[in-house]
This record gives sequence, structure tokens and C-alpha cells, in this order.
Amino acid sequence: MRVYKKAILPSGFKANSVASGIKKRGRLDLALIYSCTPAIAAAKFTTNKIQAAPVQISKGYLKADNNYHAIIANSGNANAFCGVQGLKDAREMSRYIAEALSVPKESVLVASTGIIAKRMPLEKIKKAVPELVRGLDGRGIDRVKQAIMTTDKFPKEITVRFSVGQKVVTLCAIAKGAGMIAPDMATMLVFILTDAVITQQALNLALDRVVKDSFNCITVDGCMSTNDTVFILANGKSANQTIDLGSMYFKLFQEALNVVCLELAKMIVEDGEGATKVIRIKIDRAKDNKQAKRAALSIANSNLFKTAMSASSPNVYGRIVAAVGAAGVEVKENKLKIKFTDLRKKNVNVDVSLGEGSSTAVIYTSDLTYEYVKINAEYN
Amino acid sequence: MRVYKKAILPSGFKANSVASGIKKRGRLDLALIYSCTPAIAAAKFTTNKIQAAPVQISKGYLKADNNYHAIIANSGNANAFCGVQGLKDAREMSRYIAEALSVPKESVLVASTGIIAKRMPLEKIKKAVPELVRGLDGRGIDRVKQAIMTTDKFPKEITVRFSVGQKVVTLCAIAKGAGMIAPDMATMLVFILTDAVITQQALNLALDRVVKDSFNCITVDGCMSTNDTVFILANGKSANQTIDLGSMYFKLFQEALNVVCLELAKMIVEDGEGATKVIRIKIDRAKDNKQAKRAALSIANSNLFKTAMSASSPNVYGRIVAAVGAAGVEVKENKLKIKFTDLRKKNVNVDVSLGEGSSTAVIYTSDLTYEYVKINAEYN
Repeated sequence: MRVYKKAILPSGFKANSVASGIKKRGRLDLALIYSCTPAIAAAKFTTNKIQAAPVQISKGYLKADNNYHAIIANSGNANAFCGVQGLKDAREMSRYIAEALSVPKESVLVASTGIIAKRMPLEKIKKAVPELVRGLDGRGIDRVKQAIMTTDKFPKEITVRFSVGQKVVTLCAIAKGAGMIAPDMATMLVFILTDAVITQQALNLALDRVVKDSFNCITVDGCMSTNDTVFILANGKSANQTIDLGSMYFKLFQEALNVVCLELAKMIVEDGEGATKVIRIKIDRAKDNKQAKRAALSIANSNLFKTAMSASSPNVYGRIVAAVGAAGVEVKENKLKIKFTDLRKKNVNVDVSLGEGSSTAVIYTSDLTYEYVKINAEYN
Repeated sequence: MRVYKKAILPSGFKANSVASGIKKRGRLDLALIYSCTPAIAAAKFTTNKIQAAPVQISKGYLKADNNYHAIIANSGNANAFCGVQGLKDAREMSRYIAEALSVPKESVLVASTGIIAKRMPLEKIKKAVPELVRGLDGRGIDRVKQAIMTTDKFPKEITVRFSVGQKVVTLCAIAKGAGMIAPDMATMLVFILTDAVITQQALNLALDRVVKDSFNCITVDGCMSTNDTVFILANGKSANQTIDLGSMYFKLFQEALNVVCLELAKMIVEDGEGATKVIRIKIDRAKDNKQAKRAALSIANSNLFKTAMSASSPNVYGRIVAAVGAAGVEVKENKLKIKFTDLRKKNVNVDVSLGEGSSTAVIYTSDLTYEYVKINAEYN
């Protein structure tokens, strides 16, 4: 397995993005990913009870287990909490692309990120579509990763290549996400593209498994978004022997997907709004997995812990104690053990043993700085 | 009922504080409240699983339903997560006072606030006790309210007077608390003193009721402390007709206590670390009370909501939507209604109707500013 720190589109995919005017100052804001051959797809969405229109529309399209041809994504407007109008607008976005590409509307998935409760400027999008489609290119992913950014300081991208028999399979992914990041899931869009031949069942299982241990294990500010979306498209262009649940290559595919998603998840934490540190919190010897995760999240989302971390302050210790005690999990003072690595480093590991059982959980988080407040006070 | 915005000790109480050296730079850090006649007491403590030593020791003393004579309190050191040594030290603190006042050790309640996991400097306390006791004074409460402050910007105090038949009863309370403030309960110490004649049963019920609707309805940063303590002492010096559950004056006592505690709770939010606003969040038409409170807390503890509030940004709207949706309560987009008063004002009311049922909850919180990060990064 070879890992590349950049996005390289797998065979059969093209991409592009343009500045449609949703965002100000001519910034890229409308992105298209296209698979020349029909792809199968799997997806994960936010568990927020208020779901953005593109989430609802894409869910509907995915129920059909059709073939999929494209992802249309925009930044600057979340198309969330926009009622029936929002649903119409999201559907229109897929229709514009479908008509331009001569594919069914239901084969065009939709994702949005940006400000909530503001109507999507459909006319701007409609006007931008011809240029967006005309510019589709095998190296266009570099423009897409830019176009989906909001408060992100850097684009998040990774590619893994591995052999399935004589064939090389490429798995490429990009992500956006920096704030409103909480498990289940982050405010993030993640698009994973592969040329693997894989069954729907195998693709679903692999995605289910990986999200649990990557994107659902990070928190920047404990705030869950209305728009979180992970799409994976597999178009089969590598013509490898089919990867199915029983196949010897399924494990390899899962491993590659794990690398891709964990690396992206860590990049999202590293780019956490205002963050200066990536903190790995590991809970050991919890009574059960649920309690382990709850304790880890209680620390990770404690503003007192996060501010102390930003200052590399020894108060971190007492604030971990208070956060674990407040988590509502089984813990006794005389069994609780806390260790952490050098607080002055960029990467800090916090190890907490509850001494109650044998379960473990890992959560990645960032510190809380002036900069977080600044970014989120002034965001528009 | 008359309300005074300052602490006035009821009959039979004296108080004092000194700079014992727990804190640096000669600041007041050791406080004593003394009732000349034996008082009955009731208390509420943090529900954090890690409980500070003074909490554990005071709980033990209170189990006996004895008479109580004093509260010894310090700032600068929480005496939390200090193991068996911490318990010994908290017990010693009560013993020093008990010997100086010639009362039983178990009649001296203990409360601490400050840094966690640091041994209490007992020798300094022992040395300071004679001066502390010598200076006990009917107006000493002004020194006490200063001595229990940590990151507080102002002392919190209130007094209510009301008539029970021919007698005037005084209810006086002081509080400290500014950060690590979350329901169940805030990092706060609250000492309520009254000269009322009241039965133990009535005192317990009144305190139970009031805490639920005051101190358990505020959140500054969602962080629950190891040391939260509310003590109420009633020494009967006003010689009023006994207030019991069935008595016509119980309702009046409860009302007076409600005023005292709600005002203190709001002062704690107003003094929230770095806070510039006091925000009242009201959830209406929730399915049940638990869901109403959960939705209110999800908004109140959302860093995105709190930072938008600090900037009076219209993004507040979308962030309320996301926070309610993430709260795990029943809510549908087409029934959710959100209103708020002028964001630029110091006091902001947020009204959210879930449209699902008929339950209501109110939570008070503050905004999240640079200053919060600064205070908590640099606290020592």
C-alpha cells in the first residue's frame, strides 16, 4: 500500500470548481466531481435532527441504490433550515448538473456547507454550470478541495494505492472541516473516490466500519452540524477482481480506507478553528465502550481542559480529573490514573485509566484559543 | 419582603477572613462564618463522581443531623483529588476551628475552591486560625465574600428580610463562582445564613426546591466542578413562630429563598469568565421537561452559539438551529420557532418553541469571549 499526501483522481474521474458568486470576492465555491462510468455509492450523514436539504435529497437518491455519476458541492451556504424551498433548491442543483452531463438527476449527489438558514442563490449556480462542466479535468480535484473550504486553513487530501491481483486500485479522498466538529459527525464534507470493482455490500460495510473509528472520533468544539456528509463512489474502472465481503482483498480495501479516513480526520483536528495542538485522548480500563467514549469526550469537549492545553498549563491535570468525574461514568478517585506527554509539543497524548474494566476509546481533539473565538465571532 | 443588594448578617452570626498565604500576594483566602447559637443546616453538593475532600467531609458531618456552628472556607486550593491525605487535611481544618471556638469538630462545615490535585498547606491555615477567630465580627461577611473569590470579578451577595408574625427574619447569602460553571452544579460556593426558626424538614425541602430552579439552571462553560457546595444555616435567633412544612410561613420562606438564589445564580452568570452578556434561554413546547432542559443546555453550551453571541452576530440563528438539532430531542424543522431580543444588549432572551408538547425549561448562560480563553489559559 502506498500513501500519497495529495489527492490523485482514480481512473474515470474528472473534477472542476468555479467561483459562482455564492461566496464573496471571487472565491471558488461550486465544485463538481464526475465519473464517466456509472459508480456505486455509499454515504454517511449527520445525526442532527435538523438535516440540511442536500442531506435529505442525497439520502433519497441513495435509497434507490442506483448508479451514480456525480457530486455537486458548494461552500458559503449550507441550505439548511430552509424548509420546502431548500429541498427544491437542492433538487434543482442536481438537475442542472444532470442535464449538462446527460445523466439522471438521481445520479447526482448534493452536498453543501456554509451559513444556515439562508436561501441558496440558485440563479448564480445555474449560470455557473456550463463553465463548471466544460472545465472537468483529470486533475481538477485540486480545484475541488479548495472550493469546499470555509474556515479551513488548508485543504485536506490523501490518496492510497494498492494492488488487487494484477490491478492497481486508487482510493483518493478530500475533506473540508475545521469548526462545528463533533463526533457523529464533524461539520465536514468528505468525498472518497475509488476505481475499485467492489460490491455494494462490501462498500457499505467498509464505510460503516471506518467512520466509527475516524470521523466519529474527533471533536473540535462539540458542536454537531446539520450538513455532515461522507460520500464514497466506486466506479470499477480499475477492472480488478471484484472485492466482496468474502474476498481476500476486502481486508486490504478496508485497511486502505482506514488509513485514508483516519489521516483526514486528524487533518481536520489539526485545522480545528484556532487550534495549535492535536490531542489524542485515550481512555483505558473503562467499564464498557460507551463509558470509555463518554469519558474521552467529556475531556475533549471541556473548555477548561482545552484552554489549559492552549497554554500548556499544568492545570490540565485537575481539569482532566473534573471532566472525567463529570462524565457520568464509573470512576473512583483511588483508581483513576492520568498521564500526559510534554504539553509544550504540538502533538500531545493524554492517557487516562479508569481502573474499572477493560474497555478503551480514543478521541482526537484540539485546544481552545483566542483564535477560535475570533474566527467564530467574526465568521460571515 | 425587602431585598438588599448586599450581605447583612442575620442575628447571632459573625464572620471574618484573613490572608493565610494559600494564595499569593497577601490576598484574603481563608474565611470563617460562625453562629453563636447552634444552627441546623442543609446542603447541596456537586454530582461530579470525583468529589473534593471538603465535600466528602462535610457530607459526613451532615449525615448526623447535628447542630452546626461554623463554616470554614478557603480559596486558592480545591483540596480535590488529594486522596486520603486530602480527607485528613479537610478534617484538620474543621478541628483547628472547633478547638478555637470550643465546639465539636463535626459542627464545623468545610468548603474549598481553587486548584485541583494540590495538597492543602495546613501549616499556613493552622497559623492563621487565631487571628481569624479573634476578628469575628457582625459585619465580617464583607471580608468573607472577598476571601472566597477566585477568578470572580465581583463578590456576589444579597439579603432578604420578611416578617413572620411579629418577628423579622433575615436571609443573607454570598456566593463565589465564575468559571467551571455547569448545572448540577456550578463551581461555586454558596453560603446562605438565616436567623429563622425552621424545622429540619422544611429547610431541606426549601433548599431542594430552590437549587433545581436556580443554581442548576445556569451554565457558563458546561464544566462541572469537584467542589460545588451550597450550605444553609438557620440558627433560630429571630425567635419567630416555627416554620414547618404545614405552616403558612413556609411558602414565604421558600419565596425569599428563591429570590436569594435566583439573583445569586444570575450574578454568577453575569460574572462568567470573560462574559459580556447574560442570556436567558427559554425552551417552550418540548415533549417533556427533560427534553426541554436538554435542548436549552445544548444551546447554552454550544461554543458556536456563545461566540456568535459575543459578536452579536446574526449567525446566532443558524447555530441555535444546529444546537437544538444536536440535542437528541424531538424536533421537526417545520415546527421549530426561534426568536431573540436585540443581540447588541447586555441581557438577551432567546425563545425557542419545539412545537412537540407543552413542557418548558429556562437556562441562564453567558457568551464566550477572548477573555474566557485568556483567564483559563493563564489561571494559576
